[in-house]
Amino acid sequence: MNYYSTSVTNLIEELKRLPGIGGKSAQRLAFHIINMPEDHVLHLSRAMVDARQKIRYCKTCCTLTDEEYCPICSSPKRDHSTIMVVEHTQDLAAYEKTGQYDGVYHVLQGTLVPSLGKGPDQIRFRELMDRLEKEEIRELILATNSSLDGEATAMYITKKVKPLGIKVSRIASGVPIGGELEYIDEVTLSRALDGRIQL
Amino acid sequence: MNYYSTSVTNLIEELKRLPGIGGKSAQRLAFHIINMPEDHVLHLSRAMVDARQKIRYCKTCCTLTDEEYCPICSSPKRDHSTIMVVEHTQDLAAYEKTGQYDGVYHVLQGTLVPSLGKGPDQIRFRELMDRLEKEEIRELILATNSSLDGEATAMYITKKVKPLGIKVSRIASGVPIGGELEYIDEVTLSRALDGRIQL
Repeated sequence: MNYYSTSVTNLIEELKRLPGIGGKSAQRLAFHIINMPEDHVLHLSRAMVDARQKIRYCKTCCTLTDEEYCPICSSPKRDHSTIMVVEHTQDLAAYEKTGQYDGVYHVLQGTLVPSLGKGPDQIRFRELMDRLEKEEIRELILATNSSLDGEATAMYITKKVKPLGIKVSRIASGVPIGGELEYIDEVTLSRALDGRIQL
Repeated sequence: MNYYSTSVTNLIEELKRLPGIGGKSAQRLAFHIINMPEDHVLHLSRAMVDARQKIRYCKTCCTLTDEEYCPICSSPKRDHSTIMVVEHTQDLAAYEKTGQYDGVYHVLQGTLVPSLGKGPDQIRFRELMDRLEKEEIRELILATNSSLDGEATAMYITKKVKPLGIKVSRIASGVPIGGELEYIDEVTLSRALDGRIQL
């Protein structure tokens, strides 16, 4: 039975396809949307189509952007001799929010997933190697996730890049700030011990 | 700093205005949207504008619909002599999902809020009285929420409708099915006691 009306039911169905939005949330969102001023709805709908249609990969670092080169790669204020390798654009944003990094990035758009046969050609690895050959790079910081696939990817890149004579580093693993040892898994604890720094 | 690109940042900002969607969710949704096939994005965006532009109130029961009369009011299978009064279209949907009610509805689009000076003219009360005068109504079931304002509204309607000689009833309050007495508030427990039924 169609309790509402075709257009509302249709909107609820469309919203339900989004990640993390179940039936109840979709309904709440739909009713919010039909009660919004019409021009707000138009803005929202246009923002979606606009973002989807304009989006592309930065020709240098492969992050998602709407220009040929992303704002970071085009900035003369950044240190273009240090590249941080991340998995996704969201990871880049996470580091940007710290305000502590002034180098540039390379966004792999995924990781190697050996178990699924996902190899270096399925991520932006070739583009990274091209950059390392063409540009003057001093350091490559590997900031893939500390998941199994993230670690495997970091190891793979290390193996390929070290012979080029470029310094390769990996972000530290350990106890997160504010974390209580009691609740932290053994692997993280061992990593924190191995990575201890002298005071 | 604009970490992404104007269009993605803009989409994230628009999504953040929706209820229950914070910064992290907006970012996740935005990245999902820009990775969706373009025609899916167009469907979603069109569904929003469509629902917003077509939506109106049913001329009989005041529910949100996209036709002059909603599917329930136009159905000859429903019992048009029993009206259930609810606050919002979502409440109507909640009762429709039970499949246990075959009467029609009246959607107040809110409740009286005496504390804020919201009176009967700010909700669809006049429309309800018109229906009671014009149509042949046997029973009016009050299904406003059991909140303070919902109860006040039910009491107000009872006072106005009873003199017309129409049967007025209120949905039962009590312990929800599966509820554990230990965790239920005193008011609900007293209500459940008062409303006990003989077995």
